[in-house]
Amino acid sequence: MNFTAKTIADFLKGEITGDPAVQVSDVSKIEEGRPGTLSFLANPKYEKYLYSTQASIVLINRDMPVNGQVKATLIKVDDAYKAFASLLELYSKSLPQKRGIEQPSFIHQTASIGNDCYIGAFVYIGEKSSIGNNVKLYPHVYIGDGVQIGNNTILYSGVKVYQGCQLGSDCIIHSGTVIGSDGFGFAQDEQLGFKKIPQLGNVVIEDDVEIGSNVSIDRATMGSTRIGKGTKIDNLVQIAHNVEIGENSVLISQSGIAGSTKIGKNCVIAAQAGVVGHIRIGDNVIIGAQSGVSNDIKDNQICLGSPAIDAHTQKKALVLFKKIPDMYKKLYELEKIIKEHFK
Amino acid sequence: MNFTAKTIADFLKGEITGDPAVQVSDVSKIEEGRPGTLSFLANPKYEKYLYSTQASIVLINRDMPVNGQVKATLIKVDDAYKAFASLLELYSKSLPQKRGIEQPSFIHQTASIGNDCYIGAFVYIGEKSSIGNNVKLYPHVYIGDGVQIGNNTILYSGVKVYQGCQLGSDCIIHSGTVIGSDGFGFAQDEQLGFKKIPQLGNVVIEDDVEIGSNVSIDRATMGSTRIGKGTKIDNLVQIAHNVEIGENSVLISQSGIAGSTKIGKNCVIAAQAGVVGHIRIGDNVIIGAQSGVSNDIKDNQICLGSPAIDAHTQKKALVLFKKIPDMYKKLYELEKIIKEHFK
Amino acid sequence: MNFTAKTIADFLKGEITGDPAVQVSDVSKIEEGRPGTLSFLANPKYEKYLYSTQASIVLINRDMPVNGQVKATLIKVDDAYKAFASLLELYSKSLPQKRGIEQPSFIHQTASIGNDCYIGAFVYIGEKSSIGNNVKLYPHVYIGDGVQIGNNTILYSGVKVYQGCQLGSDCIIHSGTVIGSDGFGFAQDEQLGFKKIPQLGNVVIEDDVEIGSNVSIDRATMGSTRIGKGTKIDNLVQIAHNVEIGENSVLISQSGIAGSTKIGKNCVIAAQAGVVGHIRIGDNVIIGAQSGVSNDIKDNQICLGSPAIDAHTQKKALVLFKKIPDMYKKLYELEKIIKEHFK
Repeated sequence: MNFTAKTIADFLKGEITGDPAVQVSDVSKIEEGRPGTLSFLANPKYEKYLYSTQASIVLINRDMPVNGQVKATLIKVDDAYKAFASLLELYSKSLPQKRGIEQPSFIHQTASIGNDCYIGAFVYIGEKSSIGNNVKLYPHVYIGDGVQIGNNTILYSGVKVYQGCQLGSDCIIHSGTVIGSDGFGFAQDEQLGFKKIPQLGNVVIEDDVEIGSNVSIDRATMGSTRIGKGTKIDNLVQIAHNVEIGENSVLISQSGIAGSTKIGKNCVIAAQAGVVGHIRIGDNVIIGAQSGVSNDIKDNQICLGSPAIDAHTQKKALVLFKKIPDMYKKLYELEKIIKEHFK
Repeated sequence: MNFTAKTIADFLKGEITGDPAVQVSDVSKIEEGRPGTLSFLANPKYEKYLYSTQASIVLINRDMPVNGQVKATLIKVDDAYKAFASLLELYSKSLPQKRGIEQPSFIHQTASIGNDCYIGAFVYIGEKSSIGNNVKLYPHVYIGDGVQIGNNTILYSGVKVYQGCQLGSDCIIHSGTVIGSDGFGFAQDEQLGFKKIPQLGNVVIEDDVEIGSNVSIDRATMGSTRIGKGTKIDNLVQIAHNVEIGENSVLISQSGIAGSTKIGKNCVIAAQAGVVGHIRIGDNVIIGAQSGVSNDIKDNQICLGSPAIDAHTQKKALVLFKKIPDMYKKLYELEKIIKEHFK
Repeated sequence: MNFTAKTIADFLKGEITGDPAVQVSDVSKIEEGRPGTLSFLANPKYEKYLYSTQASIVLINRDMPVNGQVKATLIKVDDAYKAFASLLELYSKSLPQKRGIEQPSFIHQTASIGNDCYIGAFVYIGEKSSIGNNVKLYPHVYIGDGVQIGNNTILYSGVKVYQGCQLGSDCIIHSGTVIGSDGFGFAQDEQLGFKKIPQLGNVVIEDDVEIGSNVSIDRATMGSTRIGKGTKIDNLVQIAHNVEIGENSVLISQSGIAGSTKIGKNCVIAAQAGVVGHIRIGDNVIIGAQSGVSNDIKDNQICLGSPAIDAHTQKKALVLFKKIPDMYKKLYELEKIIKEHFK
């Protein structure tokens, strides 16, 4: 699909410098711009590329000074990054959408499917499951019995949803992610080793949640493991049984939350961090990458390290960590001097 | 399915206080109790919920004092938690069980399938593989050629078992788990970069092993990667080629064991811990969360930290870690005083 | 298939001691040698097994002294390990190879498939995708629309490749790995929470790359996430959007690289290490296990720790870490002595 600079400028309410008739059909980064593509410049650090880019159209901030010869047609807007993101969204919505039911697929006769859905080949939908309108289930998706999925939700190829789990509307779940596997619950028995505690709860994922690839979210022993509205989860994250995560929180890649822990809203759990079970993390908490959290954290705290402490204290200690050998040496020098004089 | 308090009390050999005819059809946590559900109270910390719960029946320890008005019917037993777990197990066994072969599925003509199995749609079973009695293979399970699976084992949707691997009886493997992928074995060649070492061994999983979702267990280069009887493995764990794990050990989420390492029986490897290759961990060893183990560990040790050391020593050092800036400051103050007086 | 010692010695240009007619049909480790198997001895530490092994043939280094009675036929070669690896390769190539198209599978009418391919049952190949010659797609592989795959590449069961991604020749990708899932890109909006940035780029995997199981490689926002020729990636690794990795690098299990970071050639990122986004790691860099890297690293550096610093400095500090309690105690003793004398 082709768009002219004029069409784009009209949509963005932007101001054109250059040829309004030039056309683009794809997007590019400004430093890798190719003819026929649209790019943007928001960060002054990248200004130099404005004068060399081969992109046909560049969105720039209205207040960005232009100090050289520019080949591209410019469209000046208030916030070039936001404008670009909104065009990306428009563009991605304009792409052809999957529709219809491919064969072979397995849809239990008691399952209900909404309007305008895509059901890819080799999709399995179990007994009494209910799929909303405009849902996309890519090939090899597994929906167990009694699962509910809201409108407009997309499950990419190979997502597995165990029986009884509930997914809201406008969710996106990427390939390889497993929702509703059994929690890690065993009663230790002197005679019998570990005895499995049946996991009879489910997972509830609220609206507008995005989950990356190869994530594991375990079902609750009883009740629900719950992911709050608007929360975003990156790849390879572990969410144990009975965890509850509030709204608009972010869990970055390879982080893990142990059983029954409650996490508030607007939190950030950075990459490879771990949080132990049965604790409570407040709202607006930031936990640094590779941290290990083993105690409750109050609202608005920033924590770092393993074990995690207040980030400011941790950073001061870490800066001096590599001086430990110097400190050690000096300490024994001082001791020697003191002993010589006082003994 | 409904059960009366009388039926449950008779089964548990418990003593009823309240209406023996009240019925339940589900279970709940005492703090979230709903009418028509069964709950339990074992931890005195939760006693307050006994007086407010809406659960219809509550199991409690015979020796737990009751200090208020209780709406629920009580069943007094010796150990309320164990009694509840045994009811959960009974309940979960009473649920309808999957049976039969769904279509389309792919079963090689030379494969053998036991009695009373469930083979879900889109399951693949390769040449000369042998599946025991009462096995459940959920949709999208892949069984390569020459695989053996014992009786009563359950593989959830999308488990992949490479050719030649062996799984015991009474195992449970969750979605997304891969058994028998190639070990990470390459010979470095100055001219050719890395040259793959063919991985000709297999994986052997003994009886009564449970493995979570999205776990990776690599086949041995030669011989077998082996998981001992009764061992339990959580989600997203990495087990490299030629690793051997003893009986009744536990590996928690996102931990990883590198190639050829041997781990004893009754060990606990906590979350996000890592163990290097070619070492030996004794029996009854506990390795703390996020630890990094790079040396042999004897029986009965508790280790912590990265690099892991004796947990007691590590904890003492960690407590003082955040005092490093104070120590640093004080050290230089003392040095100043000493230099002033002695130089 | 059976091979005599003579056949093997002729192939390897080795020298026989013992019966040249003895036959083997399998391989074994020398300490687990069984009759009818071929083994090797390269490491003098294992010499004792040479005198007890039941293996029928043992390859040994020409310069290894033999100090006892050996039952096996020996074949002396310059480098027993390399010779053994080349035999393993020969053996693995002699095994029967999968060929042909199993049913049911889904191949879009506009897709093109090369010669001599294996397309397993339940494989999905999307619109306009192009599969080279001698490619093996095991059951449950998903190839989205517009994907390109080079010659001789193997995708094991359940690999998922999103639309528009490109895989080179001679690659091996293990089960559960996801290529081309959306990058974790969201614009924070005060009113609307997180707004998804459409991810319109792809993933490019160059020739001769091997990727383990349950790995996640995200597509670029724009442009390409790129894995260089000959690079090897272990299980459960995270590669975020717009990451670029050079040639012949190695990423060990459970490591993670955040968005837009560039990694050079011949690097080793060890297990469970993490690298933050938007930085540049030079060539020939080694990053130790469980390290956390948050700054650019120049060529040829070895880094360790979280935060990662020069490995030599880190190791010195770590050795003294457990002495912090002693240092703390001594510091306050010295302070007391000084205060007594100088105040």
